[in-house]
Amino acid sequence: MAMISPSRRVRRTPFSDGNEAAGVKAYTVYNRMLLPTVFRSVEEDYRHLKEAVQVWDVACERQVELRGPDAGRLMQMLTPRDLRSMLPGQCYYVPIVDETGGMLNDPVAVKLAEDRWWISIADSDLLYWVKGLAYGFRLDVLVDEPDVSPLAVQGPKADDLMARVFGDQVRDIRFFRYKMLDFQGRSLAVARSGYSRQGGFEIYVEGGDIGMPLWNALMEAGKDLDVHAGCPNLIERIEGGLLSYGNDMTDNNTPHECGLGKFCNTQTAIGCVGRDALLRVAQEGPIRQIRAIEIHGDRVPLCDRPWPLMAGDKQVGQVTSAAWSPDFGTNVAIGMVRMTHWDEGTDLDVVLPDDVRAAQVWETFWV
Amino acid sequence: MAMISPSRRVRRTPFSDGNEAAGVKAYTVYNRMLLPTVFRSVEEDYRHLKEAVQVWDVACERQVELRGPDAGRLMQMLTPRDLRSMLPGQCYYVPIVDETGGMLNDPVAVKLAEDRWWISIADSDLLYWVKGLAYGFRLDVLVDEPDVSPLAVQGPKADDLMARVFGDQVRDIRFFRYKMLDFQGRSLAVARSGYSRQGGFEIYVEGGDIGMPLWNALMEAGKDLDVHAGCPNLIERIEGGLLSYGNDMTDNNTPHECGLGKFCNTQTAIGCVGRDALLRVAQEGPIRQIRAIEIHGDRVPLCDRPWPLMAGDKQVGQVTSAAWSPDFGTNVAIGMVRMTHWDEGTDLDVVLPDDVRAAQVWETFWV
Repeated sequence: MAMISPSRRVRRTPFSDGNEAAGVKAYTVYNRMLLPTVFRSVEEDYRHLKEAVQVWDVACERQVELRGPDAGRLMQMLTPRDLRSMLPGQCYYVPIVDETGGMLNDPVAVKLAEDRWWISIADSDLLYWVKGLAYGFRLDVLVDEPDVSPLAVQGPKADDLMARVFGDQVRDIRFFRYKMLDFQGRSLAVARSGYSRQGGFEIYVEGGDIGMPLWNALMEAGKDLDVHAGCPNLIERIEGGLLSYGNDMTDNNTPHECGLGKFCNTQTAIGCVGRDALLRVAQEGPIRQIRAIEIHGDRVPLCDRPWPLMAGDKQVGQVTSAAWSPDFGTNVAIGMVRMTHWDEGTDLDVVLPDDVRAAQVWETFWV
Repeated sequence: MAMISPSRRVRRTPFSDGNEAAGVKAYTVYNRMLLPTVFRSVEEDYRHLKEAVQVWDVACERQVELRGPDAGRLMQMLTPRDLRSMLPGQCYYVPIVDETGGMLNDPVAVKLAEDRWWISIADSDLLYWVKGLAYGFRLDVLVDEPDVSPLAVQGPKADDLMARVFGDQVRDIRFFRYKMLDFQGRSLAVARSGYSRQGGFEIYVEGGDIGMPLWNALMEAGKDLDVHAGCPNLIERIEGGLLSYGNDMTDNNTPHECGLGKFCNTQTAIGCVGRDALLRVAQEGPIRQIRAIEIHGDRVPLCDRPWPLMAGDKQVGQVTSAAWSPDFGTNVAIGMVRMTHWDEGTDLDVVLPDDVRAAQVWETFWV
């Protein structure tokens, strides 16, 4: 692996000092911001995430704020998920599509009030698309990136740790709901959500100045819970089937191809700019779709480019995320497969840069 | 420095195999794509760039293609530079602004035909803004990212090297003009441009499959010219006053603040979405502006966050790029300074993470 060159353009976060003190070994760049990827080792971090509790700097989940009388209308233009019944206090996972139904992002929308939303984005400058639409349609809405940096607390001991800092009321927060809770005199949105299957919270830290005080408070309160700095874990997210925008899907894919059809209420999401295109897809179904892929044999290398999935001489899909799973004793992977070969148990070959391996298609992920 | 984690999301380029064979030591991420930053060392690469010729993988300068009857109208909506007299065969450096006059990108626009343009972008997903505008205004234009990856050839021997691969006609290409030239049966746009002050070309490689054949042809043809893989060089670009979007300017800045007022024909750029906002700025002038900053004393560290520029206790600006210049024997830097302190020779202090240094403001850059 090569080094990463520091520059202002690849932005530090309010928690970067904390990551460095905890000995971060590697980064990726996500929304033009540093995102840690390794502290001890990917496998040690994985084991610890499943057994204890970690604090994750996910400030790179930048927010797009919509504020004003047309905020709700604009929010519905962005997604085929029907938002009419959504209430303040709720978070929705929302595929975002362009006018062709291509995925532009797969963020979590946070409804703060009828006229105020945050969109907690995956890795693409969604702000630009939203600004373009707002300007083009002359909507009465302010669109910008506020000073809000999510900090995740993930792992089986997350409730215990969070209760020590925010009080026992965190235990009552339901999945994909948030409460406004106090920290050092500031009211912060604390949601039960996060990019792992181990349970936990995301704190929307409004104001970079309280980033390190909160980080330190969590680290201090969790000493006997074996709290450690962590980050989204490649192995754990693949086992759990958590997709990564830019890895497992791009703007070439519809939500239905990504297995996100359940988040598309195409009939009723009136106003969504991609609705016309998706009505067709919703009726006919996609011709390729995300699947769990097991890759047999020894540990595979890191997947830094699509690996073709072959049925004999014919390419029928590709793998875009892969890792050795210690808990399942096999290579777990995420791929997109044509309908001709996507059935449970189908045997395929996967072409690695220096190797060809036997692989199998599964309809459900490991966790 | 930490490592960079490979993933598909951080895209490889058609030239990545070439970079690896040449021993790339560090990367940054630019438009969600790998961009090399160091081969031998930043200082060795700098010396070599000024004396010989380098081949740079700048595939991360992704293209936004506009095609269709409204392509020209849309292009003018994006920028306050008057494009009416621009002809096919020309390249224009164009500030791109939103409706408030804030910079969204500072690309090079390439006019291929009256109804077809490429925008060779700096580090922001300009595609999303352009798509949003095109959709919002219901323009008759196709907007997408084509399979085009720029490869730069930079340095004093660039003409000689390019002539060996594309023929002597490259010598006649004027600055910021391009010619369509043949390589292995493909017609490629070859422009006299690039992100250095050493002269050279950018080849718009259309079709990733000919990336490595072209790379190898240049390396082979240039052996006796001491050709080497290279990349935009931090020291050289600061000496030359070449700004970096995301480092030296963001969407908080107007073009005038960035010293790009000469590219703003705000009176005549009818249709530019930021025109109203910029008319005011053009009249009154900016209250802060980019300046060359000399930082005295020993070699400064890498600038990975804004360094405050102080006049006594008062912050009057910030430094956003800095490096030790072997040729000038001082630390060269780029900063933004308030008009009260931007005059030639003004003495200021610059606050580094672990140090405070004397600094001086200059109106012109070193090269």
